[in-house]
Amino acid sequence: MTRVPDPAAQIASIAFRSGAVAATARTVPEETAVALSYDRVGYAVMMTTPCDLVDFATGFSLSEGIVDRADDILDCEIIAVAGGIECRMRLAGDMSARLARRRRHLAGALGCGLCGLESLAEANRAIPPVDSAITLSATQIMRAMRDMAIAQSLNQRTHGVHAAAFFDPAARSLLLREDVGRHNALDKVGGALARIGASAARGAVLMTSRVSIELIQKAAIMGAPVIVAVSVPTARAVRLADQAGITLAAIARDDGFEVFTHHRRIEFGAQSDVA
Amino acid sequence: MTRVPDPAAQIASIAFRSGAVAATARTVPEETAVALSYDRVGYAVMMTTPCDLVDFATGFSLSEGIVDRADDILDCEIIAVAGGIECRMRLAGDMSARLARRRRHLAGALGCGLCGLESLAEANRAIPPVDSAITLSATQIMRAMRDMAIAQSLNQRTHGVHAAAFFDPAARSLLLREDVGRHNALDKVGGALARIGASAARGAVLMTSRVSIELIQKAAIMGAPVIVAVSVPTARAVRLADQAGITLAAIARDDGFEVFTHHRRIEFGAQSDVA
Repeated sequence: MTRVPDPAAQIASIAFRSGAVAATARTVPEETAVALSYDRVGYAVMMTTPCDLVDFATGFSLSEGIVDRADDILDCEIIAVAGGIECRMRLAGDMSARLARRRRHLAGALGCGLCGLESLAEANRAIPPVDSAITLSATQIMRAMRDMAIAQSLNQRTHGVHAAAFFDPAARSLLLREDVGRHNALDKVGGALARIGASAARGAVLMTSRVSIELIQKAAIMGAPVIVAVSVPTARAVRLADQAGITLAAIARDDGFEVFTHHRRIEFGAQSDVA
Repeated sequence: MTRVPDPAAQIASIAFRSGAVAATARTVPEETAVALSYDRVGYAVMMTTPCDLVDFATGFSLSEGIVDRADDILDCEIIAVAGGIECRMRLAGDMSARLARRRRHLAGALGCGLCGLESLAEANRAIPPVDSAITLSATQIMRAMRDMAIAQSLNQRTHGVHAAAFFDPAARSLLLREDVGRHNALDKVGGALARIGASAARGAVLMTSRVSIELIQKAAIMGAPVIVAVSVPTARAVRLADQAGITLAAIARDDGFEVFTHHRRIEFGAQSDVA
């Protein structure tokens, strides 16, 4: 029986620092091929950090539109095999039929040959607009970002993984997941929220990374009205957040952050002359 | 006629810094949906920074094993359309027939349903081992990493894109490409080298990012014997570099770097007691 690998591994290295050479060892993040299958048919293989895999499989299934709710996945077995891990999911009957129709459509499109323009139209499909009246104060955001840094236990060991988190201001809770891939980290958070039946409309998604269009798409599907990221967004991510009704704050550092879209959800406090 | 967007865009934001709120503007990287098509049939849509797209299309085609040499692509038109850009490639006859066979195989596999284990086997396919007798001194590596930082002109404007570069110690040259995606940046470098007929066996691939398994796969396909990265490798990337005969150095900072595999290609100088 193969076992699921640890999310971090000790690796020997030769360090060259300040002119001196020394044999050393370093803890680095693990990366494992994870095959996601539905009713025994493979759907995708993703490179992920092997922890919180049921959350990941659930969040991925929601992001991809394979299921509408966590309950649509009847069970999810995590099976370690040579060469990786299989997340073997069983779907509720109607979802299973929907996926089978989609597979036939995809196979047909591949067989007859979708042209480049059709592929682009597919990639630009509309995302659901997020509607939420919540507001967050600048102080809450900065405190949540500090709390996120403290909670990144795998990154503290490896200095090589991203984190996504969900901050719920009413519950004063932070749900955090880590992965070598920032998209995977967010899928893990989305899956974890769905599995406990929590609504992402109540708070903010936090990311340690840059913000690309795919993260906005995932947040929109989760129904999260606010995203706060440590690093820079792309121009297209800003435009998509604007269209999707999502408040996008980024470049969140110790001294503050910048808000790119829908700043009505952020209360800056007494000094504000913009809102 | 739609035009190819600039690789950077000015975006308005509201900055909250040190308690003060101010309207400002920021230059952020652009991200564009790029559809890669061969003989008018779409193959994939990638989110990329819209610059050096012929290099990107060429390098992607090589990485994916669609072509064996840059010359197998008879031409590559870059066509800006609503929703993105199409890289419209025309393949030499034998490559075109090979891709058509692969498409039919893929469509068949999707239709009949590859199981999770078969998908994993596909993802773990062997990569070609790299054989090169070159050596680099620690001083050359550190100088090349400094030169890379200086050459990242798009990142200096946006603070949000990765760079990949190829350092040729004999020619004392550095070929650098930038993209929001580190995998795309490396594909751009691979494509640029192939288009000028330069061999990656002569030097080192440099990356501003972490090192995941996919970057090792791409470097191996390029035939690059050395990779040096600013950030941390994953454990699996280290194992794959070891198998592929690639020298992997990482955590390259101002004071030095660490070597994880095949350190015989690095000359540490007089202080060395490891080699």
